[in-house]
Formats: sequence, C-alpha cells, structure tokens
Amino acid sequence: MAQRRPAAPAGGGAQAVGHASLRRANLALVLRHLREEGSCSRSDIADATGLHRATVSNLMAELLGRGLVREVGIEHIGAVGRPRRAVALDGSHVGVLGTEINVDYVAVYGTDLAGRVLVERRVGFDAMGMGPDRSLKELGRVAKEALDDLTASGAVPAGIGVAVPGLVDVARGAVSFAPNLGWRDLPLAERLQAEIGDGRAPVMVDNDANLAALAEFTGGVAAGTPDMVYLTGEVGVGGGIIVAGALLRGADGFSGEVGHMPVDPTGSRCGCGRVGCWETKVGLAALVSSATPERAYGLGPAPDPEERVAEIAQGLAAGDPRVMAAVAEVGRWLGLGGSILVNLFNPRAIVLGGYFAKLAERLIPPAQAELERLVIAGPAARCRFLASGLGFGAASRGAASMVVEQVINDPTAIGSAPIASTTNLAGR
Amino acid sequence: MAQRRPAAPAGGGAQAVGHASLRRANLALVLRHLREEGSCSRSDIADATGLHRATVSNLMAELLGRGLVREVGIEHIGAVGRPRRAVALDGSHVGVLGTEINVDYVAVYGTDLAGRVLVERRVGFDAMGMGPDRSLKELGRVAKEALDDLTASGAVPAGIGVAVPGLVDVARGAVSFAPNLGWRDLPLAERLQAEIGDGRAPVMVDNDANLAALAEFTGGVAAGTPDMVYLTGEVGVGGGIIVAGALLRGADGFSGEVGHMPVDPTGSRCGCGRVGCWETKVGLAALVSSATPERAYGLGPAPDPEERVAEIAQGLAAGDPRVMAAVAEVGRWLGLGGSILVNLFNPRAIVLGGYFAKLAERLIPPAQAELERLVIAGPAARCRFLASGLGFGAASRGAASMVVEQVINDPTAIGSAPIASTTNLAGR
Repeated sequence: MAQRRPAAPAGGGAQAVGHASLRRANLALVLRHLREEGSCSRSDIADATGLHRATVSNLMAELLGRGLVREVGIEHIGAVGRPRRAVALDGSHVGVLGTEINVDYVAVYGTDLAGRVLVERRVGFDAMGMGPDRSLKELGRVAKEALDDLTASGAVPAGIGVAVPGLVDVARGAVSFAPNLGWRDLPLAERLQAEIGDGRAPVMVDNDANLAALAEFTGGVAAGTPDMVYLTGEVGVGGGIIVAGALLRGADGFSGEVGHMPVDPTGSRCGCGRVGCWETKVGLAALVSSATPERAYGLGPAPDPEERVAEIAQGLAAGDPRVMAAVAEVGRWLGLGGSILVNLFNPRAIVLGGYFAKLAERLIPPAQAELERLVIAGPAARCRFLASGLGFGAASRGAASMVVEQVINDPTAIGSAPIASTTNLAGR
Repeated sequence: MAQRRPAAPAGGGAQAVGHASLRRANLALVLRHLREEGSCSRSDIADATGLHRATVSNLMAELLGRGLVREVGIEHIGAVGRPRRAVALDGSHVGVLGTEINVDYVAVYGTDLAGRVLVERRVGFDAMGMGPDRSLKELGRVAKEALDDLTASGAVPAGIGVAVPGLVDVARGAVSFAPNLGWRDLPLAERLQAEIGDGRAPVMVDNDANLAALAEFTGGVAAGTPDMVYLTGEVGVGGGIIVAGALLRGADGFSGEVGHMPVDPTGSRCGCGRVGCWETKVGLAALVSSATPERAYGLGPAPDPEERVAEIAQGLAAGDPRVMAAVAEVGRWLGLGGSILVNLFNPRAIVLGGYFAKLAERLIPPAQAELERLVIAGPAARCRFLASGLGFGAASRGAASMVVEQVINDPTAIGSAPIASTTNLAGR
C-alpha cells in the first residue's frame, strides 16, 4: 500500500507531545515500517527508525500483546552473520468495517487489518422514501450483521467507517447536509452507535467522494498517485482530492465540492438553487435531459439511475446522433471543469467514478481534448482522465481504509490484556 | 513560526532511507524542536523526540559544529532537581536571501536563520523592455550586492530563493512560462548561479504567489492558518494555496493557477487566448477598463499599475459612480471565484494581495456577500477575505522562508569544518 506522506514523527512538529502520544506515534512508526517492508528483525526496525533497540523491543512487546504483529521465526541473511528473529504485521485478529449509505443502497465491506476481505454486501434501499430514522435503522441492521460476520471470522472489529453522499463534519461524525438522502444536521456516528447498541467499535464518518478517492489511492486505477482527484458521477457530482499522498479535508471537512463550482452565469438552475453549477452540465440529470429528454428527471430524487445510464449506453451503441451529441457535450464540460481542477491542484490523474466510468469510452476523448486546450500550463501539466474500476464498492472500501489508517495511527485503541511494559512510558 | 504539518520522521514513511538521510532527518527533527521550544536541554530533546540520549548528544555536536545551535548556559528548573545545560537555535551565522523579479521591479529580502532582517531593497526595472538576458544580469547584480551585505553582517549565505510571476518547474529551478516577463523555458537557477559566479549559495525558484502565500502563512495577516489561499492582484491573478499547513505544489509545481479558471463561457478573451478566464473579471486590466475606460490597457505589459490603482482609489474617495460600480462588480466576481476555492479547498481565509489589498475596503464587502451566497456548505464553511499587510515584500519574504525551511530540512548542507562525529553514521 503506497502512502507518500510520512507518518507523524515521534515528537516532531509544532506541538509538544506527551509521553502517551509519543508512544502511540512510535508504535505507529513501527507498524508502518512493517507494512511497507514485510518481515523485519527488531534491529532492522531500530536502524530504520532511529529508535533505540531497547525501545523497539519494548514497543514490539506491546504490539505482540495486542495481536498486531507476530513472530515469523528465524531468518538467515547472506552466507555469514547471525540468524535473526523476524516479526511481521499480523492483522488477522483485527477487523475493520466500511459501509456506505447512498440514495438506493447500503453497502458493507469488511476486511482484516491485512486487507483480507471477510464481508462484502450491497442491499437495495430507498433512503428518501424511508427518511432518516428508518434509514439509520436499516444501516444499523446491515452493519450489525456484518460485524457479526467479522467476529465469526475471528477478527475483532476495531472500527466502522461510514461513507455518506453529502457534507460531513468529520470531527463530530455528523452529516451537515445530504440533499439526496434528505438529511440535515444528523449526528450520524452517535445515532449509528446507538442502533448497533453494544459499543463494540467506534464509528467514523466521511464524505463518499473523499472515501472513494482514498480507495482509488490505496488500491484502484490510480493507486499510489500522490496527486489525484476522484469524481463521483451521479445526479450529483462530488470530488475527493488527494494532495501529496493525503486526503485534502480543508478546515471543516467540506473540501472537494466540485459539483457546485459556478461555470456558467447564464446557465440553468441547479438543484441547490444556484445558477450554472458544474453539476447542471455534467450530472446525470443533465445528460439524461439532453440525451433522452423523454426520460428527463424532475426535481427530487432520480429514479433508476442505472437504467437511465444503460439506455444511454444502448443509444451510443446504436449510433443515435442525439445521444452521441449529448455525451460529447458532457465530455467537453467535464474537460472544462477538469481544467479548473488541474489549474488549481495540478494532479496527475482525474479518476471518473459512477456513471462517468460506465460511459468512459465516449466521455474521455472529448473531455481530455478540452482539458488540454484549457489548462494554462499546457502539456507540461500532464493529467489523464481515467475510468474507475472499483464501481459501487469504492466508497465502502475507502471507509474501511480510513479505519485501517486509524488503527495504524493509534494501535493503543486495539484492546488487549494489559501488558507489563505499559508502565514504561515513552518506549523506554 | 507555526508549522502544523510535522517534520519528516526519522525513517518513517514508505521509502527505505539510508543512514545519511536518516541522520539529516534527525538533525532536522532536533532543529525544529528547538525552533518551537526555544532553549532546551539535551535530555528534554531526547524525551520529546524519542531519540536515544547518546544520539541527541552526537547530533548536537554536529549542529554546534555547523553553528546552528549554541550553548545558552545552565538553567535551573523548579526548586529541586539537577541544573541542566541548555542549547538554543543559533541562526546568526547563517544568512538566507529571498529575491523577487517582477514586471517593474526586483526586490531582495535577506535575513539570518533566526529571522533578523539584514537586507531589504527594491529596485525599479523594466523586465519586458530588457528581455531575459539583461533582466538576469540585473537580478544577478542586485542579488550579488545583497549577498555581500549578508556576508558583511557575518551571515554566510546558505541559499537564494527567487520568486517569479509565472509557471515554475520547481525541481529544475526553471521558468516554464512567465508571460508578463516575456520568459519561456528559462533555466533560471542555473543562469542566475552563473551570473553570481562564485557558487556560494544554491538557487531555488518558485512561483511568486506560492511564496507570498508562504510569507502570509509564516508571518502575515493569516499567520499560522493551516488552510488558506493567497491571491496576487495585478493584471494577472495568481494563487498560492496552503493545505494542512504546507504549500500545495501539485505533481509538477503548477498548482494555484486561479487566474485562468473558466468562469464565463460568453465572457471576453483573456491575454492567454482563452475565453472568460477569472482574470478577465478581476484582473487589474478588467477593473481599469470599466472604472476608467480612458486608461484601458491594450495587450502587452501594463504601464504604471500603481498609478492606475491610485486613480481608482481617488475615484472611490470622490464617490464617482462609474468607479464605484466597477469596483463593486470586481468584488462580486472575486466572491464568485472565491466560492470555487472554498468549495474545493475549504480554507479559513482568502488573503488578498497586490491591488486587491489597496482597494480592500470597497472590494471585500461585495466579495464576502457573494462568497457566502455561492459556497455550497453555507456558513458552516467559515472563510473570510482578508487584506494582506505585506505589500510588495510578500514574495521576496516567502522566498527567504523557503530557504530557511531548506536549511532546517537539511542542515548538513551548511558548511563547517569536518567534525569527528560525522563518521558515526545514523546518529549512533
């Protein structure tokens, strides 16, 4: 798993750190090293991290106690030299659950810490019709089942990530506004915790596009690309932005709201009430109304988006000129909005999700041409549109990745019998 | 100096690090700690960084040898306990030079590592009339004088930062395109080094808006705000973006090109050849042509921008309705473009430089109102337009800050007599 941005250093940075947080940082440093390198000896780790060998041994005792690493036996390196006892990351006893709640489905994706998939499920669902209370009950029910499945596989759940299509206050775990779910000011983490009831795993919430971007970055078509943008393609269009190998969240967690960039002051009115938002040019409703106007959506939730996209794909395959022109026009606007993203972020890739991915073959050529015409740095700023291969699973996968990162950043949150060494603060 | 993003950790992150780079990372860790904390004992540093005490003593010997820290005598903490020998950052022997080359001036700003200002000068100049060769000669002459001044103050120059209004390939130190200087594909670092001749300090180049943003972040009106955007306000409009406490550079160093976001498909033609760029709405030429059309600029470089802005300020003071309407209109477009930045980055502040700062009192109210109307997260994404107080010095100050960061990140580049401990690799 590529992660360019380094882990928080042991005690570096602006703020003074206490001994407990220093120990957490050092545990994370060791875990990240094991994740990158595979098996290592304790002295390899000491050499690579600059930590004292006694400190590494002490940290390792805690990680062994928490079931996060395991001894992998004796290794012999080269013809001479002492054999060494190696350790490796062991995630098999720790489970993470990613979930996504969207307009017409709930998805779950559970793995162990090493990335082995233990649960993957998608359940149809009508969020708008159900309202927030019944939606939360349904999400709680599906999550509880998945947690039971994780537990049955021997992986104790360490956390639940939830992806939501809307503005999320990440610090509070609350949804500020999710127009397509009809949610406003919903303390989702708290409410879901209450639904699940047993408090076995903390809940973290983020925007679906942010989490899909994280999934693309950790294991998708742009895996390891430190500067990239992910675009959801639904009736609404959201963005998740990776900058220098980390998710850009902004001051309040409201970054990446690409759908409402004003790009045409004489354009049509958006569902948000403003005029000329990018979404009115490239969202699914815009495409449907020009490609297949007899199917055009009114206001409110969009029924059967997959069916609409399938019809458009059929129109393309049949060479229907109206459909072809409509798709090309969306492609050009995709390139125009993409040029704003490239002028501002200078990413290496813009990954297209949702319906964009399904029509990528016909959308990308006009989008790429328009992008190249409009980007001010010209060909020097090399950026390609790429179609996502993760499909509907992207956001729930990303939600699981978020929990994995959380576990690595604070391994002390993983339950274990108290071990003797925890009285030795700060790893010495 | 606030820096939220932590220093690179000792050996953490994805890539395996060699002993030399591990030692550099540990030296930087110690220097950053001293910069944040002021004076400390070696054992404080060991506690805070997790490094072994012997390692800290060894690193400290090197930093003392390079003149980057100094012993500050004995400190007594509390009523009991042993007295301790403290050390502190000592930047007085190390100089940094920031320079800016712009359309009509060259500026220099030289400090020691501790931030004491040793040189500050601005020299009038006609970049377009002179062409690249003579411009470089002039920049070289001014920089050489400033280096001599630094040296005369006892500060050995550690590096020269150059701010350029254009697209910069930071890794190569080359200017890809600077339309207002008439430069294209100019290997500036190499050429300036040759002008200066004696190789006494390496040259680093970056975009003027990026460096002004860095100056605002380290010591301006938005100092320490981890998520902020800086806008230059000239005939061209550039942006520098700070994300999570660090300058956003993008994959090729071409980020922050706000001036050419397409915001009006039926708008007027931009100097870049495209249509409806934000610059055609908020750049100085746009304002002059609607506020004082008899002064409107043609194509090519804009003469006397400061005079034009002064005339507009007079028109405002006199209550000239045409001028007032023109400024309000620019304010509204500033808010519209600002809403794109807030939707994407969710910054806490947008700092207005250049002519925007001079007319801030009349520009900010309509800009702020339009911003709040258009931002999709509404009042939850709190972002204020603020007027820069750094004036023309912002970019050269930021160029100096860039060199300071470089020195902290790699203290081994600072010359010193070889010291015994350098054979002990990796700090032990």
